[in-house]
Amino acid sequence: MLNNPIRIGLVGFGTVGSGVARLLLEQTDAIYQRTGMRLELACVVDKDTNTKRPVQLPPGLLTSDLGRILNDPTIQIGIELVGGLAFAKQVHEQLLSAGKHVITANKALLAEYGRELFTFAKKQQKCIAFEGSCAGGIPIISALRTGLPANRITSLYGILNGTCNYILTNMTQKGLDFPTALSQAQQKGYAEADPTLDINGTDSAHKLAILASLAFGYQFTTKDISIEGIDNIQIEDITNAQEMGYVLKLLAIGQADQQGAISLRVHPSLIHEDTPLARVGGPFNTLSVFGHAVGNTMFFGRGAGMMPTASAVVADIIEIALGNSQRLFDSMPMLRNNQHPTIQNIDDITSRYYIRLMAKDVPGVTAKYAQVLGMHNISISGAIQHEGIGPNNTVPVIVTTHPTQQKNINAALDELSKLDVIGSRPICIRIVEIPEDKD
Amino acid sequence: MLNNPIRIGLVGFGTVGSGVARLLLEQTDAIYQRTGMRLELACVVDKDTNTKRPVQLPPGLLTSDLGRILNDPTIQIGIELVGGLAFAKQVHEQLLSAGKHVITANKALLAEYGRELFTFAKKQQKCIAFEGSCAGGIPIISALRTGLPANRITSLYGILNGTCNYILTNMTQKGLDFPTALSQAQQKGYAEADPTLDINGTDSAHKLAILASLAFGYQFTTKDISIEGIDNIQIEDITNAQEMGYVLKLLAIGQADQQGAISLRVHPSLIHEDTPLARVGGPFNTLSVFGHAVGNTMFFGRGAGMMPTASAVVADIIEIALGNSQRLFDSMPMLRNNQHPTIQNIDDITSRYYIRLMAKDVPGVTAKYAQVLGMHNISISGAIQHEGIGPNNTVPVIVTTHPTQQKNINAALDELSKLDVIGSRPICIRIVEIPEDKD
Repeated sequence: MLNNPIRIGLVGFGTVGSGVARLLLEQTDAIYQRTGMRLELACVVDKDTNTKRPVQLPPGLLTSDLGRILNDPTIQIGIELVGGLAFAKQVHEQLLSAGKHVITANKALLAEYGRELFTFAKKQQKCIAFEGSCAGGIPIISALRTGLPANRITSLYGILNGTCNYILTNMTQKGLDFPTALSQAQQKGYAEADPTLDINGTDSAHKLAILASLAFGYQFTTKDISIEGIDNIQIEDITNAQEMGYVLKLLAIGQADQQGAISLRVHPSLIHEDTPLARVGGPFNTLSVFGHAVGNTMFFGRGAGMMPTASAVVADIIEIALGNSQRLFDSMPMLRNNQHPTIQNIDDITSRYYIRLMAKDVPGVTAKYAQVLGMHNISISGAIQHEGIGPNNTVPVIVTTHPTQQKNINAALDELSKLDVIGSRPICIRIVEIPEDKD
Repeated sequence: MLNNPIRIGLVGFGTVGSGVARLLLEQTDAIYQRTGMRLELACVVDKDTNTKRPVQLPPGLLTSDLGRILNDPTIQIGIELVGGLAFAKQVHEQLLSAGKHVITANKALLAEYGRELFTFAKKQQKCIAFEGSCAGGIPIISALRTGLPANRITSLYGILNGTCNYILTNMTQKGLDFPTALSQAQQKGYAEADPTLDINGTDSAHKLAILASLAFGYQFTTKDISIEGIDNIQIEDITNAQEMGYVLKLLAIGQADQQGAISLRVHPSLIHEDTPLARVGGPFNTLSVFGHAVGNTMFFGRGAGMMPTASAVVADIIEIALGNSQRLFDSMPMLRNNQHPTIQNIDDITSRYYIRLMAKDVPGVTAKYAQVLGMHNISISGAIQHEGIGPNNTVPVIVTTHPTQQKNINAALDELSKLDVIGSRPICIRIVEIPEDKD
């Protein structure tokens, strides 16, 4: 255990940084009551020392000089909340070299440089704690590390990006198209001015890399993950799928097969409306974890935002103050596992599919597309063709398939695109069947 | 950290005990991979050494002699899974006195004797770990202790008894009456031969006592909890409530008001069908936690059973092996808090209510009951009186109320019971409005 009080240096005084400062300033006594730990915010570093933040710091705490933390031996913990890669990495290395434990909510950094930073921390006999990096205030890192270690984790299904979930929920409930839903999310503060990393799936992939590393015991990076975002989603596919009982979500999926091969992917996923994940709306996050002993456990809450993420960061402070984070860090399996498991190619993944063809309204169309699907060993599970004709004398035909491999679908789509009775390349979205933990 | 391998003595070789033995025997290498901890089942004690269990122990492990654990200094952890109170308490005391850390899933014991046992453990410089005591495999104890300590917890809403939830789900979905649903639950193994403690709410209250102690920081017992079970629930009230958009659940509720007064109660609760808790069906458990910083977080999974509970027990073993449980145990707020908070009397709780009157089908009835409600300051929010006449020339009249205090309702029910136009004492069920964490 570190000595009381625990003195903390905060690097990055943005939204989450302000939340952390608020908790440390306003909850000092309450946290002492709850945990026996007295936390003290010693210093806040940000290059911008002028902008007014939603929390008032005591005079003299804010500085642009990282040295104030690095050179103060009474500061035991450094919190990196600057975001981004290169500079954040440097901050980690400087803090660790100066003998501080590091806390971060920087998923991009850990997904890309986790192994390097963790190894460096271990060499310095310090730890990096990162509860805030995934799913904001939901204590999901702690659940995977301390709650489920008796389990062989077989799969993870997560809604890990609140921006995408807010956009998709709004499209589904209000029938908005993607650009309108995105701009509403920006107005509400649920999407950044540059939302690229959220909507193209990268942010979800960062979080999946971290969660899958803990769940499966290898250090994954986004290179191991097949990533597809929601930027090309059209409202009519959401509506069609709803008619068939499906809801569209951006899912992050991790699966380990019996032989230990791992599949990691982020992609738009149609899930049945009765699935618990289908009901997670708005900016909320959820992770569903399947363990061989525990069955399905599910964790829900706010995946981002000032106070929820700050709640996770302060939880890490207390765990470091207790000495627990250090032990968990040292016992992390991915630091012991030097081999890397087989990563399944997405082309080999078996899935059901939703396909929308824009078919010309001429005789023989059904026979032609059905023949192409059959030739590629794709079995049709359901179909809808509403009466009436759309643009360019085409009608939308919706087909859902039984499980088949991605490579079969790709080949079929290539062929369908060349048919003269099909107006454009068909739209194709995976239907994901989340296992049921039944009585 | 204890020395590897960690030698474990198991006391109680029933359902959960068998699950723990299975995990320890079959997952030894996998757990070592995941955590760096080598666990070794050294001894299993049960008075019955003959009955065949679902797991095969290596020869010589099973004994009826607790001394085999107590007198073996290489056994560092004792697991108590005997259940019940007096003997279990004695096992805890003997294990602690012999210098073992103790793991238990015995909620009744902790709810009644938690303070005494925890204090004793502390004196012995050992810890008691109890992840398996609440909500089976869901790592909810760990979430409250390590995930949310930055938060002032404002309320908890839990479905904590799988037996009751299975019965109520079956009544709701199949229209079964209580006795039929109970006997089906017994046939399926979801209810014990003697289901009293489950259906009368005591089991939920045991778990609420433990969870609320961690959440609010005082050592609660069932004496602090107002308890009402589901044994008097009639199917027609479930059906009527469904018509009004409500689902019946047995909820365990803990609330802290702004002044720190605590309300703890277990009772049948009508919750709106759109509430996430309303959708938790069958034998599953859920806990919804509201924290001032994190907002609403929710934890879902299997709340009982051989392997889910064993998953939690083995998680505790690993946390003790890492040394983390000991630190968390020492920092538990309820061991430092010697004062006890104000417990709100259930009569002072404000709630909405569902009331079913069996009214005689004569003129003036509506005016009479409405007048009684009005006189007690109870405002009607909705009402249903279907056409047609029931038994003894009575018609059921369903009324829902706006929020009012329990004591007003009690007074009104007393008076209504005396009206000559009312056939019997009205049925009354609380409508619980779980706060929404909105964007």
